[in-house]
Amino acid sequence: MTDDNPRQLRLKKREERRLKTGHLWVYSNEVDVKTTPLTEIAPGEQLQIADYRGNVLGSAYVNPNSLICARLFSHQPEASLDADLIRGRLERALQFRHDLFAAPHYRLIYGESDGLPGLVVDRYDRILVVQITTVGMDVLRDTVLDVLDTVLQPAVIYLRNDSSAREQEGLERYTTVIKGELPEQMELIENKVRFQVPLAESQKTGWYFDHRLNRLRCQAYAPGKRVLDVFSYVGAWGVQALHAGASEVICVDASKEYLQVAEANAAAVKSGGLATLDGDAFEVLRQLYEDGEQFDIVVLDPPAFIKRRKDMKEGELAYRRINRLAMRLLKKDGLLISASCSYHLGRKKLLDNIRRAAHKLEQEVQVLEQGHQGPDHPVHAAMPETDYLKAYFCRLLAM
Amino acid sequence: MTDDNPRQLRLKKREERRLKTGHLWVYSNEVDVKTTPLTEIAPGEQLQIADYRGNVLGSAYVNPNSLICARLFSHQPEASLDADLIRGRLERALQFRHDLFAAPHYRLIYGESDGLPGLVVDRYDRILVVQITTVGMDVLRDTVLDVLDTVLQPAVIYLRNDSSAREQEGLERYTTVIKGELPEQMELIENKVRFQVPLAESQKTGWYFDHRLNRLRCQAYAPGKRVLDVFSYVGAWGVQALHAGASEVICVDASKEYLQVAEANAAAVKSGGLATLDGDAFEVLRQLYEDGEQFDIVVLDPPAFIKRRKDMKEGELAYRRINRLAMRLLKKDGLLISASCSYHLGRKKLLDNIRRAAHKLEQEVQVLEQGHQGPDHPVHAAMPETDYLKAYFCRLLAM
Repeated sequence: MTDDNPRQLRLKKREERRLKTGHLWVYSNEVDVKTTPLTEIAPGEQLQIADYRGNVLGSAYVNPNSLICARLFSHQPEASLDADLIRGRLERALQFRHDLFAAPHYRLIYGESDGLPGLVVDRYDRILVVQITTVGMDVLRDTVLDVLDTVLQPAVIYLRNDSSAREQEGLERYTTVIKGELPEQMELIENKVRFQVPLAESQKTGWYFDHRLNRLRCQAYAPGKRVLDVFSYVGAWGVQALHAGASEVICVDASKEYLQVAEANAAAVKSGGLATLDGDAFEVLRQLYEDGEQFDIVVLDPPAFIKRRKDMKEGELAYRRINRLAMRLLKKDGLLISASCSYHLGRKKLLDNIRRAAHKLEQEVQVLEQGHQGPDHPVHAAMPETDYLKAYFCRLLAM
Repeated sequence: MTDDNPRQLRLKKREERRLKTGHLWVYSNEVDVKTTPLTEIAPGEQLQIADYRGNVLGSAYVNPNSLICARLFSHQPEASLDADLIRGRLERALQFRHDLFAAPHYRLIYGESDGLPGLVVDRYDRILVVQITTVGMDVLRDTVLDVLDTVLQPAVIYLRNDSSAREQEGLERYTTVIKGELPEQMELIENKVRFQVPLAESQKTGWYFDHRLNRLRCQAYAPGKRVLDVFSYVGAWGVQALHAGASEVICVDASKEYLQVAEANAAAVKSGGLATLDGDAFEVLRQLYEDGEQFDIVVLDPPAFIKRRKDMKEGELAYRRINRLAMRLLKKDGLLISASCSYHLGRKKLLDNIRRAAHKLEQEVQVLEQGHQGPDHPVHAAMPETDYLKAYFCRLLAM
């Protein structure tokens, strides 16, 4: 860093363009390291980002050891990410969620989209589950936790710093209870249906809030139908279908433990009506076909088959295969709800793969609805990276 | 046409590729007119479509005088579009709509996506509004009307053959009542709200069913809010916001007549609460800004500013302008619901224009929801042309 600009990171010529559209990330190869060497910046340090002429684009925190070496938290030149700013962003995030959701169960902070890069907070009423994924946010850990505690006065704060993103930032992975005592089960209500989720043993932060609206739409199709919920986890789709009047639901998951939770969640809605099958989804779907089973609706909500761009080819093949296996189980003109949370698989690509899978079965795809992540996972309009979730509601028709 | 293939239209080499993905249109420049001269085919004639080697791709009807010279109605080689096929497609379309919608008010047939190219039917319970837009469907007019009458036994069939698409097909434009008597008003229920629509003087077929789910989502944000409904027509968005608990709604439209209908629709929900402003939307929004008016939610549902690709530049400018005018009227962190029905303006392009409009006002766009056309306007997975409606739910945040 130069002496006359002690707190600036300069970009190379033309590398300011993405930021000027409102994007918040700086990649390390975009930095003019001759003028402002990344090596002289401490991990987590806050400074200004400037274009090659020195025009300030905003304020950021830096990780010199990461591919994404800086993340803007403000377009103001003199901002600092501190308790005041964090509190302002938290209140801004809280406001619309409070207005919109009937129950306080939602993703409260979704990183960049809520103006807080590197921070994710899920709220189960008085339980907060916090994830910190960058060095710049990690150095503010105590401030963040303090603001959350002050504003929300939760009974429990659970820091779930075990995501793989932390490794890329050079951070250790751990989980710890910051406040209160971790209950065995958390309760939440989604689309008027009550669920219990085992917190400590759960996937991610316990619940996938992102599919909320897609499950609500699934409820609209469910009355009187036989529904298969594949990759069901604790039954979010299947139990809501049951609640909406599905005649029968079968949940498929690799984990017997999660299926037991799904059964308990279903039992609270209606006794009987939900069955479970544990095992590899590909195998279970094959077996169901051999057994001649048929469904009105199949929900496919797989884990990300494409985590990195290099998984693309193999991942697409997996999506086509699982979609084809699901389609074979549909009754005539049946409905496939096919989702993907793989960011690298764009919306159009997912639909192409669904269409190609259908084509092999000599079927046409009529798309009734196109779903996205819910409003508690807002998309930053200048950052396509924040937009990852897709759900297609497809009717399969004879060609 | 050659003698040994009396009922075939052959494509040039490689022109079969789009059809092989499931697309249903043949453009006139894709036809091998040496082997199968288009000039020898009668408008509306049905025949096979084959690739350059003679492999049959499906059955189509032809209009030799149109840019889209053939539309497939089946991938079967020997299909004919007749009463049986039309009835089958109608019943297929009816089935899921019947299951899904609480009231029989919806687009019943949406052209290609429902396997009936050139036919659109809207259903207001016992009133059917029918549009025929191609020669191939026009020659089947009596069959179509007969099948609709037999299957649905409507009280009224109103043929609204006045769309501009008919001119491109060389068809005359007219409207006529086929059965029953046209009522002055039609009634419909959308998202639990009752509306009256003047049929004969209405836009399009009377109602824009395509925004149903977007209006439902708008209801979720409306309670306690001050809402501006721009290009309101008969108040579909505004009246539903009022129903959902909006504290105040103002509808803006160029037509005093439609605003009167909006007022009547609002009065049935709640007395007071909805006001109207007639005039050019751009002017009205400018005036509201000068008057210092502010809203929690602004709904922008403009007519298609881009009807043809050549309108692109001017149209995008219009979208940016109207969005900026709308944004200026928002309270801090307010919600803009910004829609476009211009097919040529893709989803990403619309969002880019919204983002650019916001940028001029030094605001960031947080996208809470991304809406599409409703399930009674299904998308044909192989035909992007059937996917036209966009709605972005955007929170405008200080940069």
